[in-house]
Amino acid sequence: MIKDNTVFVGNKPVMNYVLAVVTQFNNGAQEVAIKARGKAISRAVDTAEIALNRFLEGVNKKEIITSTEVIDTDSGKTNVSSIEIILSSDGIGEKIIS
Amino acid sequence: MIKDNTVFVGNKPVMNYVLAVVTQFNNGAQEVAIKARGKAISRAVDTAEIALNRFLEGVNKKEIITSTEVIDTDSGKTNVSSIEIILSSDGIGEKIIS
Repeated sequence: MIKDNTVFVGNKPVMNYVLAVVTQFNNGAQEVAIKARGKAISRAVDTAEIALNRFLEGVNKKEIITSTEVIDTDSGKTNVSSIEIILSSDGIGEKIIS
Repeated sequence: MIKDNTVFVGNKPVMNYVLAVVTQFNNGAQEVAIKARGKAISRAVDTAEIALNRFLEGVNKKEIITSTEVIDTDSGKTNVSSIEIILSSDGIGEKIIS
């Protein structure tokens, strides 16, 4: 089973997002993308670090991408930084499941 | 002139750090590392994005590294996420200066 999933990190407690990431890998995802914008970026990094250090075996950081997104607000357009952290299993998870 | 420099991002306004990064490239640095921990991580991403999009020509993101650091506090040891964003000029800056 191949699933490529995304977890959007917002203002909830970090363990909510860690659980979401771990669950997706346990459900057979080979890659999970953790995305966040603005001040949630630091929580996205926390999510990835906690998931990798405490919960996930055989999963690594594959890529970290930062970019700038233009957002429409009431007072016009604003630039917001965003981050995407892609975690990838090296196939061990897949083998166990298939 | 080769200089590899680091800008530590903390709680000051983001433009302070953007100015620090731009200044280091203008002084001949070929690589500048932007580092931050904890909640300052999102400001570090802002710093890199603003510096690249608005001020720096011929400079790219070379690497983004996230890690976990163990910090001693009054109430024991805590884990803190950290980020390091390495910006690199492609040699154009160096040629102009030398």
